[in-house]
Amino acid sequence: MSVIQRVLPEERYARHGHVGGILWFTGLSGAGKTTLSESLERALFQQGYAVAVLDGDIMRQGISADLSFSAEDRSENLRRLAHMARLLSRIGVLCITATISPFQRDRAAIRALMAPGEFHEVYIKASLSTCEQRDPKGLYRKARQGQIKAFTGIQSPYEPPESPDVVVDTESMGVEACLNVLTEYVARHFQLGTPNRSGG
Amino acid sequence: MSVIQRVLPEERYARHGHVGGILWFTGLSGAGKTTLSESLERALFQQGYAVAVLDGDIMRQGISADLSFSAEDRSENLRRLAHMARLLSRIGVLCITATISPFQRDRAAIRALMAPGEFHEVYIKASLSTCEQRDPKGLYRKARQGQIKAFTGIQSPYEPPESPDVVVDTESMGVEACLNVLTEYVARHFQLGTPNRSGG
Repeated sequence: MSVIQRVLPEERYARHGHVGGILWFTGLSGAGKTTLSESLERALFQQGYAVAVLDGDIMRQGISADLSFSAEDRSENLRRLAHMARLLSRIGVLCITATISPFQRDRAAIRALMAPGEFHEVYIKASLSTCEQRDPKGLYRKARQGQIKAFTGIQSPYEPPESPDVVVDTESMGVEACLNVLTEYVARHFQLGTPNRSGG
Repeated sequence: MSVIQRVLPEERYARHGHVGGILWFTGLSGAGKTTLSESLERALFQQGYAVAVLDGDIMRQGISADLSFSAEDRSENLRRLAHMARLLSRIGVLCITATISPFQRDRAAIRALMAPGEFHEVYIKASLSTCEQRDPKGLYRKARQGQIKAFTGIQSPYEPPESPDVVVDTESMGVEACLNVLTEYVARHFQLGTPNRSGG
C-alpha cells in the first residue's frame, strides 16, 4: 500500500487564500471583546476567510463543563481553549478567541504553545471605569454586591498585555473604526502573498 | 450599535457545499483506522470538502497531554475528542476521528452530545487475530510481553458497535474498496442537495 500524504497546512492555506492563525482577544469584561469578535468574524467571513470565534460560553458549555471557576481551573480552561484554537489554526482557520484571559503568565504560556507568527495578542482596551459604566451583562454590579467572587477588575487583577500585537481602544474609537484596524491587520498578516505576513 | 448576526452553520455549509459532521472511526489497533482516515481525508480534500482528521496522537500531544492511560482518563480523552470534533462540525468541517474507542458506553455518551444526524459511527472491522498478525506498531507483541498494560484486545475488551452507521471490513476488502464505501457514504449523507442526507 502506498504511503498516504496527509493534507498539509499549506494545501489548506492555498485553498483558503490565507494562513491559519489565532487572534487572541484579551481585555476586561465590557471592553468589547464579544462585539468585536463577532463583528470581525462576520466581516472576515463575508470577505471569504475561513474564520471562527471561540469564547468562554462555548468552552464552558462544552469541553470545559467539568471545570470550576477556581484560579487553577480558569488556567486549565484557557489551556484547553489554546489547544482548540491551535487545532483550528493548523487546519487553516483564522481563530478569534474572546476571553478576559487576565494573567500575563497564562497568555505567555499560550503563545509558547504556538508556532512563530501563529499567535497574535489583541488587546481590546478600555478603562475599568468605562467597562463598569457599560456593564453590559450586569456583572460588575453583581461583583460589587459580592454576588460574584474574584471578578476581574474588582477583586482580581487584570494584567494588560506588555507588548500586544495590536491594540484597539474602544473608548476612543467606534466599532467600525476598531473593525477597520483589525481587518487591515488580518489582511497584512494572514493573506497569502502579503510581503510582511510573518512577524507580529 | 446594531445587533451582529453570528455566522450560522448553514452559511458555512452553503460555502462548503456540504454539512459539517463527525465520522467516528472505531476498531481494534491494526484494523486500519489510521490508513483509512488519512486516505479518506486526502480523497475528500481533493474533492473540495472541508475535512480534518483528529486522532489519538493529536489529542495526547496537545489538549490531553495532562491525562494518563487509566480507564478514567481514557474516557476523559474521548470526551475532549468529542468536543473538539463537535466544534469542527459546527463550523462546517467534516471531522474524521480515529481512535480505538473500545467501549459502547463512551461512544453512546459521545453520540448523545451531538445533534441528530451529526454523529456517524464507522466500524473499521478486522478480527483480533488479523490485527495481531498485522501488528503495524508492534503493540500487540509488547502487550503479550506485558510491556503494555490493559491493551485493547489482549487484557482489555473491545466492544464492537451494536448498530454502526457504516462498516468497512478491512479483512475482506482492500483500501480502495473501503475508501469507495466511505466516500459514497459521505456524499450521500453530507453533500447539500442530497435527498436522504439525514438519517444514519
